[in-house]
Amino acid sequence: MPARTTGATTKAEPAGREFFTTRTVAEALAGFRPARRTRAEQVPLGAALRRVTAEPVRAPHPLPGFARSTVDGYAVRAADTYGASEGLPGYLTVTGAVRMGAVPDVTGPDVTVTPGSAVSMPTGGAMPPGADAVVMIEYTTEAVPAGIGPATIEVVRPVAPGEGVVRADEDVAEGKEIIPNGFVLRPQDLGMLAAAGVTSVRAHARPVVTIFSTGDEVVAPDTRELKPGQVRDATASALAALVADAGGAPVYGGIVGDDPGTLEKALRAALPASDVVVISAGSSVGARDETASAVAALGPPGIWCHGLAIKPGKPTLLAECGTGPGGTPGVPVIGLPGNPRSALVVFRLIGMPLIRLVGGCATAPPEPSTRAVLARDLASATGRLDVVQVTVSGGVATPLFGASALLSVLTQADGYLVIPEEATGLDAGTEVTVTLYA
Amino acid sequence: MPARTTGATTKAEPAGREFFTTRTVAEALAGFRPARRTRAEQVPLGAALRRVTAEPVRAPHPLPGFARSTVDGYAVRAADTYGASEGLPGYLTVTGAVRMGAVPDVTGPDVTVTPGSAVSMPTGGAMPPGADAVVMIEYTTEAVPAGIGPATIEVVRPVAPGEGVVRADEDVAEGKEIIPNGFVLRPQDLGMLAAAGVTSVRAHARPVVTIFSTGDEVVAPDTRELKPGQVRDATASALAALVADAGGAPVYGGIVGDDPGTLEKALRAALPASDVVVISAGSSVGARDETASAVAALGPPGIWCHGLAIKPGKPTLLAECGTGPGGTPGVPVIGLPGNPRSALVVFRLIGMPLIRLVGGCATAPPEPSTRAVLARDLASATGRLDVVQVTVSGGVATPLFGASALLSVLTQADGYLVIPEEATGLDAGTEVTVTLYA
Repeated sequence: MPARTTGATTKAEPAGREFFTTRTVAEALAGFRPARRTRAEQVPLGAALRRVTAEPVRAPHPLPGFARSTVDGYAVRAADTYGASEGLPGYLTVTGAVRMGAVPDVTGPDVTVTPGSAVSMPTGGAMPPGADAVVMIEYTTEAVPAGIGPATIEVVRPVAPGEGVVRADEDVAEGKEIIPNGFVLRPQDLGMLAAAGVTSVRAHARPVVTIFSTGDEVVAPDTRELKPGQVRDATASALAALVADAGGAPVYGGIVGDDPGTLEKALRAALPASDVVVISAGSSVGARDETASAVAALGPPGIWCHGLAIKPGKPTLLAECGTGPGGTPGVPVIGLPGNPRSALVVFRLIGMPLIRLVGGCATAPPEPSTRAVLARDLASATGRLDVVQVTVSGGVATPLFGASALLSVLTQADGYLVIPEEATGLDAGTEVTVTLYA
Repeated sequence: MPARTTGATTKAEPAGREFFTTRTVAEALAGFRPARRTRAEQVPLGAALRRVTAEPVRAPHPLPGFARSTVDGYAVRAADTYGASEGLPGYLTVTGAVRMGAVPDVTGPDVTVTPGSAVSMPTGGAMPPGADAVVMIEYTTEAVPAGIGPATIEVVRPVAPGEGVVRADEDVAEGKEIIPNGFVLRPQDLGMLAAAGVTSVRAHARPVVTIFSTGDEVVAPDTRELKPGQVRDATASALAALVADAGGAPVYGGIVGDDPGTLEKALRAALPASDVVVISAGSSVGARDETASAVAALGPPGIWCHGLAIKPGKPTLLAECGTGPGGTPGVPVIGLPGNPRSALVVFRLIGMPLIRLVGGCATAPPEPSTRAVLARDLASATGRLDVVQVTVSGGVATPLFGASALLSVLTQADGYLVIPEEATGLDAGTEVTVTLYA
């Protein structure tokens, strides 16, 4: 990683608060690029959907492997059909028929095409020797039905050589890369691998992401009765889902009270089994300080930034610390704001790309989005990325407001829009891109 | 379902082939709406991502449940700050501090705000009695530090009642619907459920989708050496992945030879455990006929259409047959073309919405898409939906061509565009919407 502090904006907070090393979201995405990658493992095809390849996959042999008809019709020598028309059809003698699942028997003359002969073909059938095209059944009529002797067909349209046929290596040539490295496998890729007889792939292990919740007020979601001042942990469940969406394997680290010693101990215990650690920190200044202290105590490389130029989500901490799985140094740590909504906004923008990176993914899969017209003016501050939750209906994006403590804003939203750092706001009527929640 | 044949287009195929009951894709989506729905089951929150709710979820109590501070600062009576400014600050006596995780003790005067007093607040802290606003720490300075007596602060900005506070029911009121019925649960919804203490939900069971492959030439993907004319089953693996993407549970029915008796027997055996049956049929006319015969033999309601006005994918069959899980009549059956590429195109457009329907999903989640400029002219026939695979780069969509037998066209594609039924083609330079493969 390049020098960690170059270009950092250090900014004094009012009223004697701590110094933040604040970064923009763009700086964080470009500059916070931990080197950690998960190991490769062999994954069977049935479990490989959305897994990330750890090496390119090459075709072990050509596909389809033999020349095949693409239509129902007759295998012919194309030259025998030249000039054929409705008015002046060509006449060919049908000497046999190709069946599915069987290659034509070249020792028998009935499925070898010679000048003036044709062989009946099903779609997908293996081309018989001597033929170089297949004329569709629609462009033929049976002139003499098969009876005592062979049938005769009339051909009313010419075919060019290769017409109605896929070559033996037309789908994939032998040795060709069929799946690149660092690729997220889609349904059709699994089909291609199956066609090639590749029944398992080398894929990156899912990054193990340990999720801690902190805060003396935070209790488990299954707590039936809350004591006064307590809140149930909303963030961990949502984070676990986002981790899974990014290809990671979420692990609950548990709820840790607002005590730096306890948090440090919990983090130390989690590091050897964690590819990434996520802490949804208490959102009070004290809680944030305690998270930073605990993370810093884990050892170098240390804190990369403490504060992101984003709203909501400013009190975000990014670090690499301690020793991770396999004894390799530097586990990426994300300290999130205490408000669930802020935490989830930041985790989508910063955390999910980080998990994909650690999981070996070269290019993130596309996200649903839509263009919409903004329903009202939105103010913003220059130098800060604003993430605004919106509903979208009839091509109009309507911002949802409310304190960042309100989780309902996120559940009511259809998606979010981003006001970039350089903008001071967006006018009503502006066409915006809304990233949709799927 | 309304009358099944009204509006159907029966069309004589040339050369004495069977009569198709051909429908458009729009007709199929609107008209083929089987009534079958999967039962509801209780699903724990940790397994509920992307599951479909089978009933609305209401908040059992208000959220956050108590009035909370949204900032670090001092709980005050707003009236005590009116008129405060940098030049003329208001002075308040700090009588105590609220801690996280503990509701202010109303029996003690130290955290009850009275005229002229203030209580130190962390973000998220429970509001003390008597206070109606929180002034941010940034707008205060410590005039007299706490020592022998209580501290005094200067307030340099007024706050309005309610400022810096979320009400006890501001996030969610008691009894309010937090998740609608038939809704696909997103990460933030799991967070909201956790916050409300709802640790499991009534969700539709995943539709069990049994996938058959037919064709004498088709062999399992793990077949090491192919005999001449054989191909490995590419479609089943890709279909299973698409079924999972649509929220279904794929089950392999196996590979069935081109024999209607065998297929009918296999289908009959699968029906009692299948919410949907998918058959990737042999693509020759004979194989298609055999699939239709086997499906028709399963009993009413029967075949809804045999032939879709789509390219690729015309030889598609839609039916409802026999008796399904729980002894209820009518299992939806989709017969797909034999070409893997055609089969996957049709399954995305027709099969995935069907699985979502049977799985209780009221609205499909959004799909990734992008606007792009078409690189070249595309021809199409009126009355037929054309699905064209494209790569997208730099805002330009470049069509990929090749026989529908070529699976590589699908793996090379970034997505697809649709030429609607009413169009006769699209001109180069047209702005098109490309649905992206994720």
